Amino acid sequence: MNILKKFFEPTTLALVGATRTPGFGYGIPKFLKRRGWLDKTFLVNPKGGEIEGRKVYKSIAAIPAEIDLAVIIVPASAVKQAVIDLGRKGVKAAIIESAGFAELGDGGRRLQEEVLAAAKEYGMRLLGPNCVGVVNTENKFATIEVMDPAFNPGRVAIIAQSGVFGNILLDHLPEVGLKISKVATLGNKIDLDEADFLDYFSEDDQTRVILIYQEGVKDGRRLLSALKKSCEKKWVVILKSGSTPLGSKATLSHTGSLSGEDAIYDGAFRQAGAVRANSLEEMIDLAQVLSTQPRLGRGKKVGVVTSSGSLGALTADALFREGLELAEWSEATLDKIRRLAPGYLNVKNPLDTGPSGIFKDAVEAVFEDPNPDGFIFIPVVPFAAVSLWKDLGFNALTWLGDWKVFRQKAKHKPAIAVLLGAKEWTEDLKSMVGEEIACVSSPENAAKALACLMR
Amino acid sequence: MNILKKFFEPTTLALVGATRTPGFGYGIPKFLKRRGWLDKTFLVNPKGGEIEGRKVYKSIAAIPAEIDLAVIIVPASAVKQAVIDLGRKGVKAAIIESAGFAELGDGGRRLQEEVLAAAKEYGMRLLGPNCVGVVNTENKFATIEVMDPAFNPGRVAIIAQSGVFGNILLDHLPEVGLKISKVATLGNKIDLDEADFLDYFSEDDQTRVILIYQEGVKDGRRLLSALKKSCEKKWVVILKSGSTPLGSKATLSHTGSLSGEDAIYDGAFRQAGAVRANSLEEMIDLAQVLSTQPRLGRGKKVGVVTSSGSLGALTADALFREGLELAEWSEATLDKIRRLAPGYLNVKNPLDTGPSGIFKDAVEAVFEDPNPDGFIFIPVVPFAAVSLWKDLGFNALTWLGDWKVFRQKAKHKPAIAVLLGAKEWTEDLKSMVGEEIACVSSPENAAKALACLMR
Repeated sequence: MNILKKFFEPTTLALVGATRTPGFGYGIPKFLKRRGWLDKTFLVNPKGGEIEGRKVYKSIAAIPAEIDLAVIIVPASAVKQAVIDLGRKGVKAAIIESAGFAELGDGGRRLQEEVLAAAKEYGMRLLGPNCVGVVNTENKFATIEVMDPAFNPGRVAIIAQSGVFGNILLDHLPEVGLKISKVATLGNKIDLDEADFLDYFSEDDQTRVILIYQEGVKDGRRLLSALKKSCEKKWVVILKSGSTPLGSKATLSHTGSLSGEDAIYDGAFRQAGAVRANSLEEMIDLAQVLSTQPRLGRGKKVGVVTSSGSLGALTADALFREGLELAEWSEATLDKIRRLAPGYLNVKNPLDTGPSGIFKDAVEAVFEDPNPDGFIFIPVVPFAAVSLWKDLGFNALTWLGDWKVFRQKAKHKPAIAVLLGAKEWTEDLKSMVGEEIACVSSPENAAKALACLMR
Repeated sequence: MNILKKFFEPTTLALVGATRTPGFGYGIPKFLKRRGWLDKTFLVNPKGGEIEGRKVYKSIAAIPAEIDLAVIIVPASAVKQAVIDLGRKGVKAAIIESAGFAELGDGGRRLQEEVLAAAKEYGMRLLGPNCVGVVNTENKFATIEVMDPAFNPGRVAIIAQSGVFGNILLDHLPEVGLKISKVATLGNKIDLDEADFLDYFSEDDQTRVILIYQEGVKDGRRLLSALKKSCEKKWVVILKSGSTPLGSKATLSHTGSLSGEDAIYDGAFRQAGAVRANSLEEMIDLAQVLSTQPRLGRGKKVGVVTSSGSLGALTADALFREGLELAEWSEATLDKIRRLAPGYLNVKNPLDTGPSGIFKDAVEAVFEDPNPDGFIFIPVVPFAAVSLWKDLGFNALTWLGDWKVFRQKAKHKPAIAVLLGAKEWTEDLKSMVGEEIACVSSPENAAKALACLMR
C-alpha cells in the first residue's frame, strides 16, 4: 500500500498536543468532531483530562490502539521526542504542523534534520513541519478547518507548499464554483514533497487537475520526472514564487528553501507538459476550465459570442497572443443570425449581439455550427438592464436561454463563459450556465485555458 | 465656454425618439424622472401624446424652449434629419445613441459622414453615434441608466469607446469601492473623441484619474498631444484593444475604426506619461490606487506585511519585476516585532506574521518605520479562522486593528491592501481599511500600481 493512503484515509488518528486553551491547534478536536472523526482520534497532552468529551492521554505510549496517522502540534522543541515516541509505538505516518524550523535559520534547520533522522530510524514518513496537513473531501477527513462548501467532493487536487496558501485556495475555489478532491500542504517538506503527492494524485480517480503552489525545489530531477508522469494522466497547473531575486529571498525565510533560476523552471515545466500560471487568479481560472472541459484537440478555431464589442475585441487579442484563431461561422449560422438580428448588427466573429436580445439564439446557433473547435461566451449586461428584466420577471435563464441544453449539441468541444458584473447577476448566470461550461473571470484567462486544451 | 460643458451640465434637454414601448430608449424617460431631470427634458416623437406624465412634442421645431443638449435615439436612417432639425433650432450639442453606421460597413460610413456634414453646417458638436452618452455623478445627469451606487461622486473619469463597456465599468467600480466623476462613451466618434474628453477632464476638479478604453485612433498626433497635456495634471490609464491582428479585425467591425500597430501605441502612451493596463481587472485596480494614493516620489523601497508567506513571496517577485525594492526594517521596528512575535517568526521583509496574531502590531510598527517609501498589506485569514473569531465576537477591526488610525502616521506614503477571500470577509476588511488605503485584488496589480506612483 502507498504510505500516502494513511495520510488521506487513516483508520485511527493521534493528535499530539491537543489543547483546551485558544491558540494553535485549539480548534482541531472541535472540527474533527463535527466531521465525524473524533471517535477515531486519540488526543495526547501531558495534562490529561478530557476535550470535547474525549479522553486525553498523558503520553503517546498510553494510547490503547494502533495509530495510522499522527498529527503533531506541540512546540518545535518537543517535536523530536514526539516523533521518537510515535516511532516506538509503530506509527509510520505523521503530519508536523508545528513551525519553528528551517524557516528560522540554521538552528531550526539542524532541529528539523534531527527530527527527520529520528523518523527515518523508525521508517516513519513525515509531512511538514510548518504546514497544516491534508484535506480529503471524499471521506471528509481534514487536519485543518475548512468551510463546509469546500467539502463538496470535486476534481481538483492541491499541493501547496504553504499552509495558509492551501487555505486561501480552499476558501477561494468553492466561491468560484470549483470543487476539490484532496489537498496536501507541505511546509518545509523535510521528507514528503511535491513529487510524492504528484505520484499519489496521478493515481487518484477523484482528481482531474492538480494545482501546485511551489517555492523552492529540493531535487529538481525527481520533481521533473514526477511531473512528466503526472502530466500523462492529469492536468498539472503550477504557480511558482521565488522566481526573482527578491521573491527568492522571501521564500528562503518563509519555508527555508532556495528557489533557483526562473527560466530553468519555466523550460522544465513546459517540457514536462505542465501549465505555468502567472497569478493566483489565473491558476484558479485555469483549474476551472481544465477540470471541466474536453480537449480542444488539433483544432484552434474559436467561436466568440458577446454583448460587448469591446470585450470581443479584447478576447480576439488574447486568442491571438495564445496562438489561437477565430472560426468562420458556417452559412447556416450566418443565415440564422442575420434573419434574427436587427439591421445595425454586423455578424462577425467575435459576434457582438449588442443589446439586440439575440444572445440566446446566437449561443444555440454557434453550438450547432461545425466550424468552431471551442467557444467563449461573454454575456455582459449592464446592471440597470438586469434590474429592468427582474422587474419584468426575467432572469438569466429566461433572457439568455438554457445553455445547459444548448451545450449538449457540442459536448466534445470546450466552452467557457467569462462572467463579469455584480455578484448577484453573475451568480444567476452561473446557475444558468451549468456545470458543463466553465466560468472564468477574464477573456485573457479564457484564451490561455483554451490554449492549454489545444496541446 | 467649453462646448463639452453642455454635455455634462445641460440646462435643457431634448430626447428625440422617446418611446412608450419597450426597446432601445424605452427606459430613458423613466430614469431621467427618477434623477430629477425629466422636468428639464423635452420629449420628441411624431406620435405625440404623453410619457411619464410629460408632454411629447411631435417635432423638434415644436419644442417651446432653447435646448442645450439633444439625445438622439431614432433609427440610423432618421438621424440625419433629426440633426438638421436640431441645427435649425440652434442646438449646438447632440448625443447620437443610435447604431447602424460605420460599424456596418461602407454604407453606414457614408451615412455617418452625411450626419457629420449636416452637424458642421450648424456648428453642432456630436457625441457618437453608436454610444450611450454621458454620466455626471455631481449633478446626477446621465443619458444611460446606472445603478444608484455608481452615482456616488468620486475621482475617476471614464472615456470608453463602447457604450456597453462604459456600463461594465460603471457596474464594476462601485462593487470594488471606486467612485466615478464623469463618464463619456464615444461609439464611432465621428466628431468628439478621446482627445476632446481628455482636455475636458484634465480641467475637471472632480477628477483625479482618467480611464480610457480605446479601440482605434483617428488622429494619433492629436491624441498624443492631448494625452501629454492630461498626464501633467491627472493620472491616465489606458486599456487598448485591437492590439493584435485578430483584435484589430474585431474592433473594425465593432466601432468602425482601424487600430494600428501595438508597439507604436505602447511607446506613444509611455512617452506621454500614461499607464497602459493589460486587462480590465488591472485597469480597475490601478484606478483604485492612483485615485486615492500619494506619489511614491523618488523612493522605491516597499514594506510588505502579510499573514501568508506564499503571498509575500509572490509580492516580492512582482515588486522586483516592476523595478521596486524591499525596504530594510528600522531597528525600532525589528525590536518591536521581535518582542511581540513568537519564537517561530522570522522577522524579514516581506514580514510574514503567520497565525501569530501580531498583524495589528506589525501594521502599526511599519507605518512608523521611516525606511519604507510605500506599503503593501496582505491580511489573508482562512475563512475557518474568520468564523471562529466571529463566534468569539471579533471582526477585522478587533483582530487587525484600526488601519485608518495607523495610516495617519505616514499619510504621505502610498499604502495598498491586497484583499483575497470570501466576499463577506473582504467587505469587513474594506470597511476596516478605510478610504485612505487602496484595496486591490492581487499582489501583481499592487506592485504595478506602486511602480506607477514612483514616476
